[in-house]
Amino acid sequence: MRHMSVMPLSTTPDALASVPLKWIGPLTLFSEGGPETLDVPLATYESPLWPSTRRGALVSGPCGGIRCTLIDDRMTRSILLEAPNAAEALRVAAYARNRREDLQALTAETSRFARLIDTHHQIVGNLLFLRFAFHTGDASGHNMATKAADRILHALLETFPDLKHVSVSGNYCTDKKVSAVNGILGRGKYVVTEALIPEKILRRHLKTTAAAVAELNVRKNLIGSLLAGGVRSANAHVANILLAFYLATGQDAANIIEGSQAITHAEARGNDLYFSVTFPNLILGAVGNGKGLPFVEDNLQRLGCRAERPAGENARRLARICAAAAWCGELSLMAALTNPGELMDAHLRLERAEA
Amino acid sequence: MRHMSVMPLSTTPDALASVPLKWIGPLTLFSEGGPETLDVPLATYESPLWPSTRRGALVSGPCGGIRCTLIDDRMTRSILLEAPNAAEALRVAAYARNRREDLQALTAETSRFARLIDTHHQIVGNLLFLRFAFHTGDASGHNMATKAADRILHALLETFPDLKHVSVSGNYCTDKKVSAVNGILGRGKYVVTEALIPEKILRRHLKTTAAAVAELNVRKNLIGSLLAGGVRSANAHVANILLAFYLATGQDAANIIEGSQAITHAEARGNDLYFSVTFPNLILGAVGNGKGLPFVEDNLQRLGCRAERPAGENARRLARICAAAAWCGELSLMAALTNPGELMDAHLRLERAEA
Amino acid sequence: MRHMSVMPLSTTPDALASVPLKWIGPLTLFSEGGPETLDVPLATYESPLWPSTRRGALVSGPCGGIRCTLIDDRMTRSILLEAPNAAEALRVAAYARNRREDLQALTAETSRFARLIDTHHQIVGNLLFLRFAFHTGDASGHNMATKAADRILHALLETFPDLKHVSVSGNYCTDKKVSAVNGILGRGKYVVTEALIPEKILRRHLKTTAAAVAELNVRKNLIGSLLAGGVRSANAHVANILLAFYLATGQDAANIIEGSQAITHAEARGNDLYFSVTFPNLILGAVGNGKGLPFVEDNLQRLGCRAERPAGENARRLARICAAAAWCGELSLMAALTNPGELMDAHLRLERAEA
Amino acid sequence: MRHMSVMPLSTTPDALASVPLKWIGPLTLFSEGGPETLDVPLATYESPLWPSTRRGALVSGPCGGIRCTLIDDRMTRSILLEAPNAAEALRVAAYARNRREDLQALTAETSRFARLIDTHHQIVGNLLFLRFAFHTGDASGHNMATKAADRILHALLETFPDLKHVSVSGNYCTDKKVSAVNGILGRGKYVVTEALIPEKILRRHLKTTAAAVAELNVRKNLIGSLLAGGVRSANAHVANILLAFYLATGQDAANIIEGSQAITHAEARGNDLYFSVTFPNLILGAVGNGKGLPFVEDNLQRLGCRAERPAGENARRLARICAAAAWCGELSLMAALTNPGELMDAHLRLERAEA
Repeated sequence: MRHMSVMPLSTTPDALASVPLKWIGPLTLFSEGGPETLDVPLATYESPLWPSTRRGALVSGPCGGIRCTLIDDRMTRSILLEAPNAAEALRVAAYARNRREDLQALTAETSRFARLIDTHHQIVGNLLFLRFAFHTGDASGHNMATKAADRILHALLETFPDLKHVSVSGNYCTDKKVSAVNGILGRGKYVVTEALIPEKILRRHLKTTAAAVAELNVRKNLIGSLLAGGVRSANAHVANILLAFYLATGQDAANIIEGSQAITHAEARGNDLYFSVTFPNLILGAVGNGKGLPFVEDNLQRLGCRAERPAGENARRLARICAAAAWCGELSLMAALTNPGELMDAHLRLERAEA
Repeated sequence: MRHMSVMPLSTTPDALASVPLKWIGPLTLFSEGGPETLDVPLATYESPLWPSTRRGALVSGPCGGIRCTLIDDRMTRSILLEAPNAAEALRVAAYARNRREDLQALTAETSRFARLIDTHHQIVGNLLFLRFAFHTGDASGHNMATKAADRILHALLETFPDLKHVSVSGNYCTDKKVSAVNGILGRGKYVVTEALIPEKILRRHLKTTAAAVAELNVRKNLIGSLLAGGVRSANAHVANILLAFYLATGQDAANIIEGSQAITHAEARGNDLYFSVTFPNLILGAVGNGKGLPFVEDNLQRLGCRAERPAGENARRLARICAAAAWCGELSLMAALTNPGELMDAHLRLERAEA
Repeated sequence: MRHMSVMPLSTTPDALASVPLKWIGPLTLFSEGGPETLDVPLATYESPLWPSTRRGALVSGPCGGIRCTLIDDRMTRSILLEAPNAAEALRVAAYARNRREDLQALTAETSRFARLIDTHHQIVGNLLFLRFAFHTGDASGHNMATKAADRILHALLETFPDLKHVSVSGNYCTDKKVSAVNGILGRGKYVVTEALIPEKILRRHLKTTAAAVAELNVRKNLIGSLLAGGVRSANAHVANILLAFYLATGQDAANIIEGSQAITHAEARGNDLYFSVTFPNLILGAVGNGKGLPFVEDNLQRLGCRAERPAGENARRLARICAAAAWCGELSLMAALTNPGELMDAHLRLERAEA
Repeated sequence: MRHMSVMPLSTTPDALASVPLKWIGPLTLFSEGGPETLDVPLATYESPLWPSTRRGALVSGPCGGIRCTLIDDRMTRSILLEAPNAAEALRVAAYARNRREDLQALTAETSRFARLIDTHHQIVGNLLFLRFAFHTGDASGHNMATKAADRILHALLETFPDLKHVSVSGNYCTDKKVSAVNGILGRGKYVVTEALIPEKILRRHLKTTAAAVAELNVRKNLIGSLLAGGVRSANAHVANILLAFYLATGQDAANIIEGSQAITHAEARGNDLYFSVTFPNLILGAVGNGKGLPFVEDNLQRLGCRAERPAGENARRLARICAAAAWCGELSLMAALTNPGELMDAHLRLERAEA
């Protein structure tokens, strides 16, 4: 744009913000492929997060691994148009839903990987919000989705002369902002992590009981978050682990905002503990901005997320590993909070991880 | 804790996650002290964020600076207790509210800087959530607040033998999770940024008009965010700038979750544009974890946030600067979105900053 | 059930709660059929609501009628099941989505009118929430949807022996509770009302201007509701008119909870005012509980909602009329609020209608 | 107002909407005064609500009564002002908070009963939202609060010439709209209902177990409502009972919108069930609009809410009774939902009460 040509800004960084990184493990995760043990990289200014997360990881092995199930995978962008009135807006929405093949063809023109998989609309007065969902291969897909949505937007403007352009993004996408729509309609990877922790492990490694963790989860994560006026969010501190993992793997960490809307669900099964964390919106990629930095390349390599796989599989593997790491950190803090007896300094170190 | 003594984990990092950092400016901010021009550091994997934010900064000078007003400053922690019944819970809540001096004395025992300034309660069945608000000097204050809350928690348990300990954190605090309570009762720095942008500047630097930006703000940031089921959040992409500024100044960037709940409000005043971004929950500090790293020390120094000032003033200055930088990035993207005509690649570079 | 046979309770009422009812108009609404003028019945203990709503109605004629557009129509119920783990839950969800014809056949067994039109799922840990959407003819459809969902629930339990029954309603439906899901996925009638009000009418009948109403709407209904921590709700007092209309037409008025989540959008078009209210969740019926009471029969008759029409059309007409009445009440109060000069008593009468 | 003088509308109703009313009981409630047994009136078009609620009432006796604790009592109104900038807005907010006595004097000028008890503010850009909380005696207090707020509003305009009037209501109050602010800062009566139900009663009267109800509450009311994107709401169907009780006692039933944001919390204590419903926002009155109707007078009389008591006590008693009735209906449906075995027709009758 003008101001850029007038006074161009070099894209050479002036310096580096260097965040301490540590590999934590061994962590055992269990997916279709069966159990697998690995270490995970966490970059953070909050070093107490390392022993806290590691404590959870040490439990994952004896449990047979953390089951990681991928429920959904998509990236979204909602365009915003102005119609003469609501009836016209509805006509355009119906057109967009009924012409999927045409819109898929337009999408294909903009990217080798993007594939349109769903269209959703909302109408307010004469405003039309069209939310498009895409598969975007191994990229988190923000740019692919924007490019494709922009192409569709202009095609609709040509088809419907009465339509007016408002914005390529109408905040019904929604990007890096808390919402309910991302959880309900999906955005990013939807991953469920779960494991059954035997009583013996709970006592030895976590100094707690199934009943204590399950009860705390209801009172703190479910009721406490509800009182706080949270939206689709019930956990102790998954944001901390997501941030550290995102920084270590070259992700756009602002996506932890959606990621933080995770749901911890714990139940006592006899004296064993069923502990799960559900992540409806893990937004990350194995390629794209930041992934080209040498240390990121190395870390993704070491995590086995640069292998020859069908498009999207490297990113999905990365999402499973990230979710498993967050499960470890969440379990560890929840267990610690049931132990008022723990030395305050240790307590604080863990608290610090939360706070 | 036991698992640590058994298998201690060294706190030496294995490596560094090095995020590219660039100083952007000149940015003019206007506070009690009058106008002041400076550069701001942004560390990000999304390099398009630099020119985007800079474009907004270039506008701040001709506007006479971005007015930054600090509305409030506090850090909070909510403890969770179980009473025999709701009536008893209410008795404890009343005690905590009426004995502020006593609780302030307890707080003083735990820190040189922490000062209790408010107590709030919620009761669900026989569960009591007590939310304490503190001044915490130049630190973001998470640990100070936790330590003080823990001290008060144990004092209450001694005073009321029928009470049961549930958790030092009841998620009504609330930390690194979306909520309404943090905006309504306060958490972190509450900063309002505003400026009146003359028509001439809008046209020359931003290629837009006051009416176009104001209308887009209502349709995208207010109505679009509402449709998305957002909570107390109406902006285009402040999270991007907060993340970059937080990483560059050694902050715990997971706090951008609360920070992202910002409100952009724009109005056409004749042909000029009143553009404001309100940040009810900017959580950051000038001291504490991460602040000791050499590059962080240097950056805080360069920003004038390590000067001899009354406790808290360095952190408040940092919050004003951070908010002003986010105002720049928000304005720039909003203006770009009103320009479908802009070259797609430039458009995309900015989009990428959002997406 | 047992306790009923042991101590049966007669279903004969002991008395009547008689709410004062008044017919308000003339109101002009404009739908596919073109403009049509009618009166609407409002039953309320808050008599100031009558002149307030009527003032808006008097404006509808000179505007050429209130455009009422039906965007969607459905009733929903979400069942809740427990699977052995998330992977199994996903398998069941996929089955339910892929076997629509089978589930439609099951639905048909339970009702002459219910037709399954959509299935949506959410998985938390090993819990499966399946949300079914149905067309339910002229009934609001709560019971039809429950009956059909219960039938499907038991069929799934037979097909998947590992599944456990949790509840025929999992609150993801959601019924008579505030939510985001009802607006995003739909529940009830989704109606948009809009009209362009000429400057002359604004001045003579409403003593206000387009700019004043549009500005107030942004500040009060959009920003004010956002600060309050509302969800998908931005209006002044539509709940008042919905309640009065529901009581007058034998509706289950608890459905105003969803109905109250309406969005008022106003824009100045030159000196004219575009005023719209969007109702994503108007839940009502032309047949069913309460509709058999003589005064209800008469009122529905008089509103032309007992005519020979395709299934569902009487209920959709009723929804359009209800929405138009709410548009009138909303416009009237918004205009009044721009007139601090109005006599306090009159002001209060209208306020009372809000408060 | 003009349009009224031009074409006055008589306030004589054209007819009555007569809702069937039945007295349900015996219900035992336990408050400071000890246990007390009474019947409660429910007016509804959904007759199955009667046996459902009664089933819960029959349990209240053997439990020693439903403990009803009043946590708070207030009515609110938020005014909306425009300041030259945020700093000025803050100055006005500080003034309003520091001059409580002056504002209390202004309040006293407008009503014999209204007493200002709290002031809260929010600032967005240059907009100032001032939320005032009042005690309003036995009235729900909407009009009193509006009158007092309007008086304060004009006093502030006189004191601060730079201020501009926007609206006597800024939706931060908030009235008859879902919100988080009403629960966090309070609006109406905040009542907690609780009882411990012995195993024997659970089995005989409710055909269920403590574990079954507690588990269902977590999965349906807490997790299900969270998935639905609810805000501060976790219950099965309290709205149904609130509506019926409000219609039977001459209340403005649109207030069930806030009332529906109730929290059901259930825990197994051994084989007994601790069952509680918390109502942060029960908005009702013993005097005011509608209370003058003969059948309302009679019903309030019969409920003992027209006795000679200190101002406010009749309304608080009414709130306790209303909450206890809702506790009964909630318990009954929750128990029924744990019994898939119940005959479908009975099941449906109860379902209908929910749906």
